[in-house]
Order: sequence, then C-alpha cells, then structure tokens
Amino acid sequence: MTKFLLAQGGGPTAVINQSLVGAVIEARKFANIEKVYGALHGVRGIIDQKLVDLSAETTENLELIARTPSSALGSTRDKPDRKYCQQILRVARAHGIEGFFYIGGNDSSDTVRIISEEARAANYPLACIHIPKTIDNDLMVNDHTPGFPSAARFVVQAFMGLNLDNLSLPGVYIGIVMGRNAGFLTASAALARTFPGDGPHAIYLPERVFDIDSFLADVKASMDRHGRCIVAVSEGITDSRGVPVAESLIGNAEKDPHGNVQLGGGALGDFLTRLVKDRLGFSRVRTDTFGYLQRSFAGIVSDVDQREAREAGRKAVQFAMTGSQRGSVTIHRTDNSIGDYAVDYRVSKLEEVAALTKKMPDAFIAPSGADITDAFHQYLRPLLGAGLPDVGRLRNLAVPEL
Amino acid sequence: MTKFLLAQGGGPTAVINQSLVGAVIEARKFANIEKVYGALHGVRGIIDQKLVDLSAETTENLELIARTPSSALGSTRDKPDRKYCQQILRVARAHGIEGFFYIGGNDSSDTVRIISEEARAANYPLACIHIPKTIDNDLMVNDHTPGFPSAARFVVQAFMGLNLDNLSLPGVYIGIVMGRNAGFLTASAALARTFPGDGPHAIYLPERVFDIDSFLADVKASMDRHGRCIVAVSEGITDSRGVPVAESLIGNAEKDPHGNVQLGGGALGDFLTRLVKDRLGFSRVRTDTFGYLQRSFAGIVSDVDQREAREAGRKAVQFAMTGSQRGSVTIHRTDNSIGDYAVDYRVSKLEEVAALTKKMPDAFIAPSGADITDAFHQYLRPLLGAGLPDVGRLRNLAVPEL
Repeated sequence: MTKFLLAQGGGPTAVINQSLVGAVIEARKFANIEKVYGALHGVRGIIDQKLVDLSAETTENLELIARTPSSALGSTRDKPDRKYCQQILRVARAHGIEGFFYIGGNDSSDTVRIISEEARAANYPLACIHIPKTIDNDLMVNDHTPGFPSAARFVVQAFMGLNLDNLSLPGVYIGIVMGRNAGFLTASAALARTFPGDGPHAIYLPERVFDIDSFLADVKASMDRHGRCIVAVSEGITDSRGVPVAESLIGNAEKDPHGNVQLGGGALGDFLTRLVKDRLGFSRVRTDTFGYLQRSFAGIVSDVDQREAREAGRKAVQFAMTGSQRGSVTIHRTDNSIGDYAVDYRVSKLEEVAALTKKMPDAFIAPSGADITDAFHQYLRPLLGAGLPDVGRLRNLAVPEL
Repeated sequence: MTKFLLAQGGGPTAVINQSLVGAVIEARKFANIEKVYGALHGVRGIIDQKLVDLSAETTENLELIARTPSSALGSTRDKPDRKYCQQILRVARAHGIEGFFYIGGNDSSDTVRIISEEARAANYPLACIHIPKTIDNDLMVNDHTPGFPSAARFVVQAFMGLNLDNLSLPGVYIGIVMGRNAGFLTASAALARTFPGDGPHAIYLPERVFDIDSFLADVKASMDRHGRCIVAVSEGITDSRGVPVAESLIGNAEKDPHGNVQLGGGALGDFLTRLVKDRLGFSRVRTDTFGYLQRSFAGIVSDVDQREAREAGRKAVQFAMTGSQRGSVTIHRTDNSIGDYAVDYRVSKLEEVAALTKKMPDAFIAPSGADITDAFHQYLRPLLGAGLPDVGRLRNLAVPEL
C-alpha cells in the first residue's frame, strides 16, 4: 500500500485541473494506492502540512473541477532550496508518501529535480514526477505544453474581435501579450487573421531584438497600406542589450522569488502608444495589456488542450506505477500518415526540462522578424481545438455616387 | 417604392450587426422597399457617398455577419452639426431615401434628432429611427441596451477566472472596466461570485465619489478577512470635484470629437496599484485594464442579447413602415406573471434619449457605495443568457498533521 501526493505550482492555466483530476482518477484504479493527497498552495502546503484528502472527492465534483480554470489546490511562487526540500521529504516520510507529482512549469520541474535528488541521497523511495503546464509553451523537449493551447485560443479570439473593432474605427492598436522569454503566445495572434488585410499586421517576439525604428516603420507601412494597424507585442521584448523593454522603463522593477521582473501593468503599452503618437503623429492610438485575463478566463478553452492535460495527469500516475522513479511527462507530436494530428506521451529526464526555457524556433519566425511562418500556423492550428468563432464580412457592393 | 439607409455609429458591440441584419431582413418583407443601402463608417459614409447595397447580400452571409462582433459597416466618432446634417439630407434626397436608421448610442441618437429636424425644416419626408446599442447601458428610457448584456457577460466570465487566479496566488487584484458615466458594466463583475468569499470584494462606480481612503480601507479589510482582495473599478470613477480620477492623472488628456476624455491605457490601474503598495505595504498587487477586449471579443456573447438586438432592428423597420416618422426604439421589461423575464419594444421620442445619460439607480447600489444590491443581481441575471461557465471547488478535507 502506498500514498501519492499532488501539488500545483506557478501561474494558473485553463486546464491545470484536468491534469490534477486525471492523476487522481487514474490513481483510483490501482488497488495498492491507498490515498491521494493534495498539498494546498504547492510545495508551501507540504512543509506547512496543509494537506487535503483528494481520495474523498466525488468523481462528479472532480469532473466539475477539471473544467474549472486555475489551480484548484492553490499555487505558490516559492522556489525551494535544499533545506526546504529536506522539510518536504520529512513530511512525505511521516505520511508514508511514495509518489510526488508536481504540476507546473520549468521552475516547478526544477523543484521536482531537487526533491528527487534529496530523496535519493536520503535513500527514501519517492517517485518524483513533473506534470507539464504553462501558458508560455516554453518547456524543453515538449512539442507543446498543456495550458498553452487554451491561452492561445484566448489570444486568437481576442485579436479576431480587436481586428474587427479596428476595422470599424481605424487607427493604431497595440495588444501586449504574456510571454517572458518565449513568443509562442504572442505569435498565436496571427491565427486571428481571416480576410486579406486582417491584423495583426506586425508581431514582436522576445526571440528578436525590438528595434524602435523598425517598429515605427512597420506601423507606418501598415497605416499607409491599410489605413489602420494592429500589432501584437510580447511583454518580454528586449532591446539590443538583451534588457526587457518593460524593465528598462520601470525604474524600480519588482522581482518575484525566481528573480523574474514583473512585467504586468500598463507601462509598456503606454510607452509604445506615446512613441507612435509623438514620432508618427497618428492621433488614434489604443493599447491593451491582456494581463491576467488570458491565463484563466472562464469559458475560453481548447478541447484538445483539455484532453491532453487530462492525459498528462493520467500518464504521470501510469509512469510512476510502472517503474519510473523520476522524470517529466512530455508531449510529442507523432508523424501520422492517417490523421493530421496526434501526440504521444513519454517520461523524459528532469534535467532535460528543469529550469530550461524553450524559445520559438527560427522556422516559426518570418525573415522580417515581425511575423510568423506557415510552419507556425500549421503547428498551432490543431492545438486551438474545435468551434472557433467564424467571422463574416459584407460584400460592400458600391452604390454609384449621385 | 422607397429606399432605406442604415448606418452604425460609435463603439462596436458583440451584437450591433444583429440589429443591422434584423433591419435588412425585415425590410425585404415589404414589397414597396426597393433597396436597403448601408453607409460605410456611419454618417461620414453618407456625406462621402460611400454607400453599399445591402439588398444584394445573401441571407446566408447576413446571418454570418449577424454573429460577427463590431460594426460590419464600419463606424465613426463624427458628431454632425447642422451643416453636416444638411449634406446628409442632400445625399438622401439624391438617392430617393425615405428612411434613415442609425444604430448607436446617445450621441448617435442626437445625430438622428438633428437630421430629423433638418428634414422636417426642409419639408423632406424622411423617417428617422434610432436603434439602440451601447456596452455602457446608459441610454435613457430603456430597461437595458443591446450590446450591454454581452459585454457584461465578458466581465462576469473574466472575474470568474480572475477570482480563481487570485484564490490560487493570493494578493490584491484591480480590474479596470469600461463605463464613462454609468457603472452598469463594472457592477456586472459582482455576478462572477459563486462561493462565499469570492471576489470582487469591492466595486467602484462612477455614480459614487471615489475616495482614496475608503478604497484603501476596503482593500485592507478584504486582505484581513480573506487574505486576498479583488476589486472592480470603473474607468470613469471621479473624485469629490467630479473630475475623473483618470483625467486628473493624465496631464494632457486626449479628447474625442464629442469632448470625452480618452480613459484607456494603464494609467489608472498603475496609479491604484502604486497606492496600495505604498500606503498598505502589500507586495503582490496586480492590475488589468480590460480595455477593448470587453467590447468586441469574438465568441463571448449573450444569446438573450443577440435575440433582442435582432428584434430591435426588425422593430425599427416595422415602426417606420407603420407610420413612425421619428423616434428611438426602446426596450422595456414587462411585468410578466407567467415567465421571469420578457421585454417589449416601443418607439420613444428622440428627445427622451438623445445626448442624455442614464446612470445606475440608487436601488442597484449598496449603501456602502462599494457593492451592488440584490435588485441589480435580479436585473442583470436574465440578460447574461444561457450557458455561463460553472466553476467547482475542492472539498479540502484536511489530512491530520504528523
């Protein structure tokens, strides 16, 4: 008989609870798993012994929670060191826990790695499995990461509407999208295009140096050509020195425990707006920073993402039960001669994922540096899932002047 | 035989094209309506003679457009004076147009009023009908206005997700919602609450003076009680002098042709964030300005709003064909002893709607000034429509400490 412990770390996603519920329901199938516990607010809940009994949840309630965005167990930004991890081990031992599953991004996978090493050093048999999630899609090894497809869908639907808004009342519109180091989420805005001339007309990613003159030239070119301009800008764009544009604007930048500068707020958008007004002289310039809306909006979700996040949770338990003592569940796109899109799940070495960041490959970025390629379009489209809104346009058959 | 002319003014909504399509399809039923024209970009398209033949559109394409957010004909912020309206009349006469329908807010209804007066003065028989739309819900006479329910639904779904996000990673969250003079849209955030303790924990409306000390006391009280705090703030909140807080912060405030200060951008949110950090010492304070996302997001719409916007367009044509020469289509909630919710459509005097602003009635605002009443909840709930997301929560059965 054994006990498993689940926790959720980092920022929320629309499907992080699918992975939680997938693992809990899968664990119930194994007669030798006595209990499944959850830690409230990530690893912090382990050392504070804020543990809850997930075995006692009804399947009905678990299914409702699976459809609910944001971490149902609560999350944390704590970045455990060795001592913190030794405390975690003490609690795990005391409760007879032999499997630890942490649903999170690259920082969380690094936490799993450290705990796993401490367990090994202490000769304590603890299976340590990382279950991937991140809206940024920046985990190594994975084709893509649960949470990203739903956030991308939000960005696509947002830009579909913003394009129509801007078509109706023309001007310059700047949408600031999340993504500290990887531009996948910002790049997703491109899939909002339906008709020729639709925005976004330019896309700025953290993978390319943000040059103010190029940006202004792009905006001007779009205004000249279309009489309007929509740009998608990653919050993580950097200048030629590699310093985030947002950071170089905020004098006393706030940092999280992982040393990351907090990029939210309206500063970047307001800065770019001012730039377009002052340097190009366009009067109607609008900006939005999508912020927290894009990572846990209730009701915008990709069905593909839901299914894959569920499966990642299931697989984590299966891998642990069939002998994997440490690793990260990773998602791999298969070459499939029958269907267009299919994925496999593997368990990869924690060291290949932990604390590393995947960026947009060059093949996904247009030579101009301010757009995406067809390869990215083909990569993303199946992930967005079914039932995207369809938008129409009038024929506009002109009535002769009188 | 007669011709009708349709146009759309002001900001877009999720259902403004339902009204357009409702009017076009209704007009087709009348054998003596020879043509239905549309003006591109509102009244501007009339004087520039950018007219299109809507009669030539397929019903299939019209139905797709009806489901598409933002003005399909394009819009304008032009505020016509007498001379501008005389030019409109000249074009209407030249084309033999005998019915003018303008879908818009209170500024647009005032344009209809002036054109109607000019037509009368010129003894030209032009039926002038205003069809209501606005996300702000600030049109007089109406129980509510097409466009508002869908925007309110966006705000509700946003705060559902933001509440879960904040529950997962506790701190202070400030969401800035549109609504220059009327707080309906901001107040809608209250309907995101599902479980006890859910946010928003405080709501700030333009109908009440925004007092910084009260705001900070509310935030502190929520942090003390819940360990977290979510507030919904209208972009139009004003200080005790009646000056918008956003305006008193922006030195050189940009104004639109209607003399309204542009309230977008991140300044208000950043100001409030700074205030909470500096005065209360809370470190994790986040803010989003919902901005343009909330008024034309593709895929978030209330089915009730869709049906009512369609009907408002239909009714406008019916009213014109049955003798109404001028007026504004208004929506009235009926006392209905059988069902919970039903509305009637009437034609009201333009003077009762034009250039006037409806505000939240006192009965909808809690005595504290920072919350809504049950009466508002009952008012809004039927408008949001069917299929709102359901959110779950774990039972959190505690595991004893060891």
